[in-house]
Amino acid sequence: MEKRKKFILQEVDIPSQWYNIIADMKNKPLPMLNPQTKEPMKAEDLFPLFAEELARQEFNQTDTWIEIPEEVRDKYKIYRPTPLVRATGLEKALDTPAHIYFKNESVSPVGSHKLNSALPQAYYNKLDGTTNITTETGAGQWGTALSFAAKAFGLELAVYMVKISYEQKPYRRSLMQTWGAQVIASPSMSTKAGRKILTDHPNYQGSLGTAISEAIELAMQTPNCKYTLGSVLNHVALHQTIIGLEAEKQMEMADEYPDVVIGCFGGGSNFSGITFPFLRHTIQGTKNTRFIAAEPASCPKLTRGKFQYDFGDESGYTPLIPMYTLGHKFAPANIHAGGLRYHGAGSIVSQLLQDGLIEAAAFKQLETFEAGVLFAQTEGIVPAPESTHAIAAAIKEAKQAKEEGKKKVILFNLSGHGLIDMSAYDQYLAGDLTNHEVTDEEISCFLEEN
Amino acid sequence: MEKRKKFILQEVDIPSQWYNIIADMKNKPLPMLNPQTKEPMKAEDLFPLFAEELARQEFNQTDTWIEIPEEVRDKYKIYRPTPLVRATGLEKALDTPAHIYFKNESVSPVGSHKLNSALPQAYYNKLDGTTNITTETGAGQWGTALSFAAKAFGLELAVYMVKISYEQKPYRRSLMQTWGAQVIASPSMSTKAGRKILTDHPNYQGSLGTAISEAIELAMQTPNCKYTLGSVLNHVALHQTIIGLEAEKQMEMADEYPDVVIGCFGGGSNFSGITFPFLRHTIQGTKNTRFIAAEPASCPKLTRGKFQYDFGDESGYTPLIPMYTLGHKFAPANIHAGGLRYHGAGSIVSQLLQDGLIEAAAFKQLETFEAGVLFAQTEGIVPAPESTHAIAAAIKEAKQAKEEGKKKVILFNLSGHGLIDMSAYDQYLAGDLTNHEVTDEEISCFLEEN
Repeated sequence: MEKRKKFILQEVDIPSQWYNIIADMKNKPLPMLNPQTKEPMKAEDLFPLFAEELARQEFNQTDTWIEIPEEVRDKYKIYRPTPLVRATGLEKALDTPAHIYFKNESVSPVGSHKLNSALPQAYYNKLDGTTNITTETGAGQWGTALSFAAKAFGLELAVYMVKISYEQKPYRRSLMQTWGAQVIASPSMSTKAGRKILTDHPNYQGSLGTAISEAIELAMQTPNCKYTLGSVLNHVALHQTIIGLEAEKQMEMADEYPDVVIGCFGGGSNFSGITFPFLRHTIQGTKNTRFIAAEPASCPKLTRGKFQYDFGDESGYTPLIPMYTLGHKFAPANIHAGGLRYHGAGSIVSQLLQDGLIEAAAFKQLETFEAGVLFAQTEGIVPAPESTHAIAAAIKEAKQAKEEGKKKVILFNLSGHGLIDMSAYDQYLAGDLTNHEVTDEEISCFLEEN
Repeated sequence: MEKRKKFILQEVDIPSQWYNIIADMKNKPLPMLNPQTKEPMKAEDLFPLFAEELARQEFNQTDTWIEIPEEVRDKYKIYRPTPLVRATGLEKALDTPAHIYFKNESVSPVGSHKLNSALPQAYYNKLDGTTNITTETGAGQWGTALSFAAKAFGLELAVYMVKISYEQKPYRRSLMQTWGAQVIASPSMSTKAGRKILTDHPNYQGSLGTAISEAIELAMQTPNCKYTLGSVLNHVALHQTIIGLEAEKQMEMADEYPDVVIGCFGGGSNFSGITFPFLRHTIQGTKNTRFIAAEPASCPKLTRGKFQYDFGDESGYTPLIPMYTLGHKFAPANIHAGGLRYHGAGSIVSQLLQDGLIEAAAFKQLETFEAGVLFAQTEGIVPAPESTHAIAAAIKEAKQAKEEGKKKVILFNLSGHGLIDMSAYDQYLAGDLTNHEVTDEEISCFLEEN
């Protein structure tokens, strides 16, 4: 029989509900706290900042399945369902008995999985009568996705883009502008938070934490304007479960079930998306699967951070979030996987790690690019620098399977392509990239007790 | 009933044969001529330059269907079948009664349709025992595709890249290098042809014609090395028919048949690919469809060129080809649709135009970028500057349908995405792009009688 490479669903197979893992968790994530009163927050407390339905989703602990609005599902059809691919070329190159599958979210027109949450976030804001939204973007993947989503639902968008990415990735800026967004390099002089950090550190290259502070500040001070976030929060993880729900059907088509499911890890959006639907069978005790969050060694919140309450942004504008964190003032090295340069992990993932339901592993920059080039040469797709972390983890698992002479089914999420990150590959091929080590002192100095 | 947006095939639906339109043509294309003897050439005459099977395909006038080798079909599975998409967002924005469909070749990992011919060309060369291949690339789409194809079949590749593209599109160069190819800006000092033109015109920014001369020269002077070409030739058009063959099945799924089929036009590869399978029904008299080749107004070989024998390259290394041409020394303006900056059209397309079976229309640069931005904002995909010509033609047809109050089914080929051409969009959005007019004098001065 001919070996199948891709497992392809039809439009009717696009899920009609997202999976809310919190409803199934025995230990629920700890609540967000009001930083002043230290009291647990409620959905209404977030209404000034977020669209109301998004705030309600953030706190929903009871509904396992949440309906995807028809208008959102209709826009999903632009690129969904995405293919599940058997990485036969990579398997051959590794000479491994493992079967490696990847969910190819890079076929989205914005180049990554981020559109999965950008579309509902824009939709719910439109529904509230919001006219303007703000956000931040690190590598540019989230800002790009939200730019198209805002245009699709008729909203104005301002994006604070981490300055180092703004300069390293001019095409990202052009893309956002082509879709009609306004893009501002962060830190900027347009907000109090930006001005303060620029005064203190004139050459600061920016971070996601700072950009979040700026985007929140602008939203709070503009009438009819709300803020949106592309990772970390529960409602973002919820929207991203569409990845794993499709993958589940596709693994059935392939007549296999994964022994290991892998996603790269920044704030948790794509990792949650690929793993949660499979995790529900583990929680229910019907399957025994390993889940690996692949993070950069230079920003190792899951492997070396601390589980405690922390702010989501640099200036401390957000509620206190229970998270594995390196401290909200931790300034990660300028690695090319800009989307993974974030100090904390979402509260669901943090609880799951705490409970031993998932694992984490850290990978160094050179190892991830080596994995990325091998993947490009064997599977044809140049992966985003973020996604190379998941590939590196999959390769490690596949090599182990070879050593042990065991068949193993590995599934990872290819969160995006790297076509707009080619300068990073240039530098790697020229031998100009390095690893960035973080000392224990650097980590502990930003970890204050709250 | 829910409106379907995408028409999705399975791997088993990937065609197993290419369609050779020459076998069905009443008036066959005129033969290639040996420039010295002016005698018609035979397949064997091309064996020194091309893989033998490719040379045989070039001259095959009898077999309507040609088997796709299993090894090639297997690699096609990396990205094929590609989706057929109903451009519902664009239709709405134009408020047209027309139904607009596009075949989305941009989902290929190299970003364009070029991989459809790169894979068989690499394969047949490997089969011959060739170890090295050469080629040229204009916009970089062909070179990128061949870089991956060469790696996939274990060949070494040298790409001569038109200098203006080499400078405007550094990410293209990085992509080719990531897949392991050697990339040289053309004109270069590495060939006689390059040295001559650099001596005559030290600041020459290059052209496809010059790059072809350099790639042929290197192939002829390197042992075990063959040359490959990404457009113009019959065997390239043959491989690209996989686009239209899939689209035909998908239009059936949509329960419609196109009244108009559109492709942008450089040398003819994607235009041939989308149109030939539909044209066969027109040739057989069972359908009555219009076929429109959309070319740039600054390089108008089909609308303002002359049908005569001409060289395929600037230096006159190739056989004489019967083509609509602007003259092989015609130097097109530096428009961003680099893949359309070629002086001539393939011999099949030229004969079809001569016989009135297809039409041609020219579009100015600003009109094409306007169409591209509208498409990006409504369909989510930023199109390649080349593909915007097909979109502009589709929009023109859809507007006409609205004026006439007629339903019309329009199908165009989205040959590639523009994610690596964002500097062009930047310039367009900044108002820095212009149209390039060509005078009748400029055209006639390069058209010599042969």
